[in-house]
Amino acid sequence: MVDRLHLADHEPSAVLAIGPVAFDTIITPTQEGERVLGGSGAFASLAASYFAPTRLVGLVGEDFGDEYINRFVKRGIDVSGLKKGKGKTFYWKGRYFEDFNKRETLQLDLNILENFTPELTEEFKNTPYVFIGSVDPDLQMNAIRELADEPFIVVDIIDHWIKTKRKEFLEVIKQVDLLFINDSEACVLAQEGSSMIAGQKLRELGAKTVVMKKGEHGALLFHEEGIFAAPSYPVMNLKDPTGAGDAFAGALIGYLAAVNKTDFFNLKHGVIYATAVASLAIEDFSWNRLESAGPKAIEERYETLLKMMTF
Amino acid sequence: MVDRLHLADHEPSAVLAIGPVAFDTIITPTQEGERVLGGSGAFASLAASYFAPTRLVGLVGEDFGDEYINRFVKRGIDVSGLKKGKGKTFYWKGRYFEDFNKRETLQLDLNILENFTPELTEEFKNTPYVFIGSVDPDLQMNAIRELADEPFIVVDIIDHWIKTKRKEFLEVIKQVDLLFINDSEACVLAQEGSSMIAGQKLRELGAKTVVMKKGEHGALLFHEEGIFAAPSYPVMNLKDPTGAGDAFAGALIGYLAAVNKTDFFNLKHGVIYATAVASLAIEDFSWNRLESAGPKAIEERYETLLKMMTF
Repeated sequence: MVDRLHLADHEPSAVLAIGPVAFDTIITPTQEGERVLGGSGAFASLAASYFAPTRLVGLVGEDFGDEYINRFVKRGIDVSGLKKGKGKTFYWKGRYFEDFNKRETLQLDLNILENFTPELTEEFKNTPYVFIGSVDPDLQMNAIRELADEPFIVVDIIDHWIKTKRKEFLEVIKQVDLLFINDSEACVLAQEGSSMIAGQKLRELGAKTVVMKKGEHGALLFHEEGIFAAPSYPVMNLKDPTGAGDAFAGALIGYLAAVNKTDFFNLKHGVIYATAVASLAIEDFSWNRLESAGPKAIEERYETLLKMMTF
Repeated sequence: MVDRLHLADHEPSAVLAIGPVAFDTIITPTQEGERVLGGSGAFASLAASYFAPTRLVGLVGEDFGDEYINRFVKRGIDVSGLKKGKGKTFYWKGRYFEDFNKRETLQLDLNILENFTPELTEEFKNTPYVFIGSVDPDLQMNAIRELADEPFIVVDIIDHWIKTKRKEFLEVIKQVDLLFINDSEACVLAQEGSSMIAGQKLRELGAKTVVMKKGEHGALLFHEEGIFAAPSYPVMNLKDPTGAGDAFAGALIGYLAAVNKTDFFNLKHGVIYATAVASLAIEDFSWNRLESAGPKAIEERYETLLKMMTF
């Protein structure tokens, strides 16, 4: 039995996470993590697994050994949709600067993902809560079309796709229930200078709900019923911010599946849980801290965050 | 009778604002304001006047006509400490870039402020709530020493003084009750890369309480009882951010004087009121919007901000 948070009297719904699984080499001002487990599908599914049964769809190469597969299995993640193909696993190498808000890509090898098209079984197509990580918006749209029964769908995006396929992505956001985006990407996508204005404009452009991730400045939730502002957790030992956004997204979709509700009230609480989970992810390279953190650490940070917003 | 917010059953205490009064020429990407009323003392006293009787101490030149003095008088601000001397008023000319978070100083003429030493009457020395704007830390320390009866003192600072007189300013923060600082300046003063860590370190360095202003990312309050995070108000028509931090500081000290309490609970509410006031200040050049906004607009924004933090 996988350790999860217990947030409702009923059994949690299931989460489907579609997104890259990768090897990352990460250079920070003080340390280096070489070929560590990464990718948005990996981080999102790990985070979601703390809240709900989670299914992962992705594609890895022959270099992705069982020792990595087993880490997913230990978290109770259904890896039947994580296919292994001929070739090498997606690889990203990047470096963070002194202030950790800036990074540069040193190497990016799509490898096996060059011809990736997610294939979903009938069971997977019927998953009620779906996370689609940042991939080519055309692939995102294909995945959305394959899904049955009107699931609750969230998508994430990175600036590369906004710059190269803005028009296609603006079609994607109309088809989903929630858009994850960071503040600078939101400004680019909405063509606005202020993230507060950008978040509201993205709703006018067709996104039902927007969750804007602002790193150490917290998160904003733009919803038809209003705007909600969440603080960031006061992390004292930031080690590697890679995957924070994906862990955030995975935790939020996991929370929604756990309570099986998607109203404004629950989205707010989900954002606070997601902030707690993301804060754990960045305290070590790769999965290292979040994988072993346990539900209690998440609950404690959730409580701390609530206190930071209470009079 | 000046229109004020009514926040307590008793009469409000008084506020003393010590800080430059200036003429600013401000160039934004779309507009220009030429030789408009500015300076930290001006913005702080205007903001404080919405909450409590306010006394201003400053020095202006012969070019500071009665039409400007009258704007203070109309807000009920005691200008008996605003001296007029031989020479010209402090002048600053600056330009904002597209994203409004970056600006450059194009011209800075200290003029009459070159030999400014605030002089306080006995009555002024006994004001229970004191704001000291960003001036040379040696001047700040002199002003603190002149004050009687242990008032509640807040100071503000800008990066110029942190870079040139860090050691002196670290002595100042030990003598005051509350330090206002923006996030990038806090990182420089604390010599930390993360503003969340910087805020906590400034308390270790001797600041009792720190209010960190983060512009469109809201504000953080670091207090011995914990950390409080306030969102920013969703301003849709940002015109000129000049003076936002000073208006914020003036509103907070004004709020504390109005309720005559300085505990964590009231500091939190004061930060929310200060956020509301600062959001009005930036919707036009100079005093223009805040001067005419009225208490009702402040209350409405305060309520909106509370909703943004409520589940």
